[in-house]
Amino acid sequence: MMIDLQLETQHIKQAVFDAFVQFKAAQPLVHYITNSVAANYAANVLLAAGASPALIDNPFEAAQFAQIASSVSINTGTPNTEQVQAMKLAAQSATTQQKPWVIDPVGYGQILTWRSQVVDELLAFHPSIIRGNASEISALVGHQTQSRGVDSTLHSADVYQQAQLLFIHTECVAISGESDFIVAKNLPYAIQVNGGSHLQPRVTATGCALGALIAAYAAVSSPTIASVCAHVHFAIAGQLAYLKAPSVGHFNVAFLDEIEQLNLEKLQQHINIQLCLLTT
Amino acid sequence: MMIDLQLETQHIKQAVFDAFVQFKAAQPLVHYITNSVAANYAANVLLAAGASPALIDNPFEAAQFAQIASSVSINTGTPNTEQVQAMKLAAQSATTQQKPWVIDPVGYGQILTWRSQVVDELLAFHPSIIRGNASEISALVGHQTQSRGVDSTLHSADVYQQAQLLFIHTECVAISGESDFIVAKNLPYAIQVNGGSHLQPRVTATGCALGALIAAYAAVSSPTIASVCAHVHFAIAGQLAYLKAPSVGHFNVAFLDEIEQLNLEKLQQHINIQLCLLTT
Amino acid sequence: MMIDLQLETQHIKQAVFDAFVQFKAAQPLVHYITNSVAANYAANVLLAAGASPALIDNPFEAAQFAQIASSVSINTGTPNTEQVQAMKLAAQSATTQQKPWVIDPVGYGQILTWRSQVVDELLAFHPSIIRGNASEISALVGHQTQSRGVDSTLHSADVYQQAQLLFIHTECVAISGESDFIVAKNLPYAIQVNGGSHLQPRVTATGCALGALIAAYAAVSSPTIASVCAHVHFAIAGQLAYLKAPSVGHFNVAFLDEIEQLNLEKLQQHINIQLCLLTT
Repeated sequence: MMIDLQLETQHIKQAVFDAFVQFKAAQPLVHYITNSVAANYAANVLLAAGASPALIDNPFEAAQFAQIASSVSINTGTPNTEQVQAMKLAAQSATTQQKPWVIDPVGYGQILTWRSQVVDELLAFHPSIIRGNASEISALVGHQTQSRGVDSTLHSADVYQQAQLLFIHTECVAISGESDFIVAKNLPYAIQVNGGSHLQPRVTATGCALGALIAAYAAVSSPTIASVCAHVHFAIAGQLAYLKAPSVGHFNVAFLDEIEQLNLEKLQQHINIQLCLLTT
Repeated sequence: MMIDLQLETQHIKQAVFDAFVQFKAAQPLVHYITNSVAANYAANVLLAAGASPALIDNPFEAAQFAQIASSVSINTGTPNTEQVQAMKLAAQSATTQQKPWVIDPVGYGQILTWRSQVVDELLAFHPSIIRGNASEISALVGHQTQSRGVDSTLHSADVYQQAQLLFIHTECVAISGESDFIVAKNLPYAIQVNGGSHLQPRVTATGCALGALIAAYAAVSSPTIASVCAHVHFAIAGQLAYLKAPSVGHFNVAFLDEIEQLNLEKLQQHINIQLCLLTT
Repeated sequence: MMIDLQLETQHIKQAVFDAFVQFKAAQPLVHYITNSVAANYAANVLLAAGASPALIDNPFEAAQFAQIASSVSINTGTPNTEQVQAMKLAAQSATTQQKPWVIDPVGYGQILTWRSQVVDELLAFHPSIIRGNASEISALVGHQTQSRGVDSTLHSADVYQQAQLLFIHTECVAISGESDFIVAKNLPYAIQVNGGSHLQPRVTATGCALGALIAAYAAVSSPTIASVCAHVHFAIAGQLAYLKAPSVGHFNVAFLDEIEQLNLEKLQQHINIQLCLLTT
């Protein structure tokens, strides 16, 4: 079967525009369980984007809260015993309630075995989206990656083909990097998102905040379109922020401004995606 | 008995100016137990204002430290078992030592039952000030409010009358919102604080930082005047910051500058309070 | 034996320049266990400087991770039970593997007895560097200091002589303050680092971030040179940031820029150290 990639690209763009409008109207309430580095930053990113963050990470309230939230995002950056309990309860609750939820398996790999096992247990609750950097995604697939702590040593472009192996756990995998790649169970192509700035990985927790924003968009659209929306939102904000502030401190401030100031017109003007046929 | 509201307003303003001068001289040491989102931000707000923050949130040191601190501020944003133990010990210690202490019952309501029970237990130690948004205060009064996570869905102006019911627990209730309202056991009127910027709720943890600043002012003045001082400090800083930086990222930076740069002259020039007679 | 202090100063400066070049090439992976206030900020400082932070603070992964990290930095700002377990495991692992590690004993003293005991236990693993403010270092030496929470009430210049008593635990002690002082087991003089801005202590967690940066430099140089490098890096960044942004909010942003933009040329131009003979 021939696929008209140009036409498909237009369809995806239109779905992104529609989701953006719905997102702005809905102000989704995101139940976010995350690490101590990302907590403040990602909450500010969600607020700036127009969502409402709630960081409920104790096991006594996590199941309850996942029921009333619009969506759930779970990040394994700095886990401890109670937080891990909360993650499992929230994931279970989200799945039971058919709420969209995102897992961001920060640090998954050979070295951090405890959290990796936690992530494996969480995957049993079938996240709507798995989002990570190339090292994490490759490690999830089963490759013995040489990650350096929580930063990636691989390129997203080299990993998105393998990511399809994760469709046993999820219907969508989003891989951030110089370009971002999103693959989905039902699509014969990866969606590549271009843009951003080389300063983004120089600001801590940008990837974490992206995982939170994907969940926010997933409250109003499909896992795939939500992933594209969040990555495009970040790519445009990063690109525009860099033009105004090409040093890391000021970039970080300008980035938050641009996250807030994205509107439909800017989105239509700056969106930069392309489709890459999958070989598997 | 007739009340000369204009004269009362002048008295309160003068008390605020006096407290501000004493606050700047005293640099109060605030024992602050708070959530992972607010920790860094509120510490920076306290330092910028001229207080000295210390975040001691383990049960092994909380009672000890509350004894030597100038005041205590307790925030239930992201509680866990050990932190909750620390909260109770600090509250008990503060009450025993007759130290002023503030409770900020973040997320109180029908959905987050565990923390709400914790807050109920903390109220038994009689906080000097209960500070919250309109949804939290209304839920504390016993209304079944429909909060969305930790953000308010009610207006402070609609809640301050009911807040008087909380005088069984405290002598002062401060409700933040578009305008802020402070009610006190011994006053027949609410004190309304005007100013600020619509961007303040778009920056996470501004309410939390306000709860910390109230405690700092309470080290040098009565609960009521301390609450007015902190809200006026925020209202002026928010207003002036918005004039310089009307986008969320830069606003946040400018806000910290304005928190630091408030002086007696600016305070006298920009303070905007009015009294609203209570009907109960 | 006569010491040519001018010649020694030149030697130290040259060692600092060499270490800086190696640091930029190596991008050391720092295993950082820290408090909730410093987590985001210090991670951003490390990234801006060119290191790679990983905050692994659970007892199930700390020993493992310390083995693969370039160096370890432990900060006792907001300890809890699991984090303290992680600290001990990481310290032990670092010592066993002969990895450089830094202890930043935040709050050490008479009042915070639990963490002080934790620090005493950690000292048994012989940190490469003890870094603190003057109150903490004086308390470690055994003086009954009157600290106010976590901020110092003493001057670094009054404490560096006593700091030599800590050579039973470590080979290097770094004391931050208006000027910083670094003393080392094998040196007959203290190295005084000048520069910085009076706004640095007005931004929370700058001291904590310094402890993280010392560990980063210790991955590529001796404890003494690493300490000098990190303090000089901060002193120059603080000085240049203040020239551009003399208010606390904007200073904080500019400081991160200057941390990133330090290069060998600026380092050579602005380094300001002097040697002070020790009397003991």
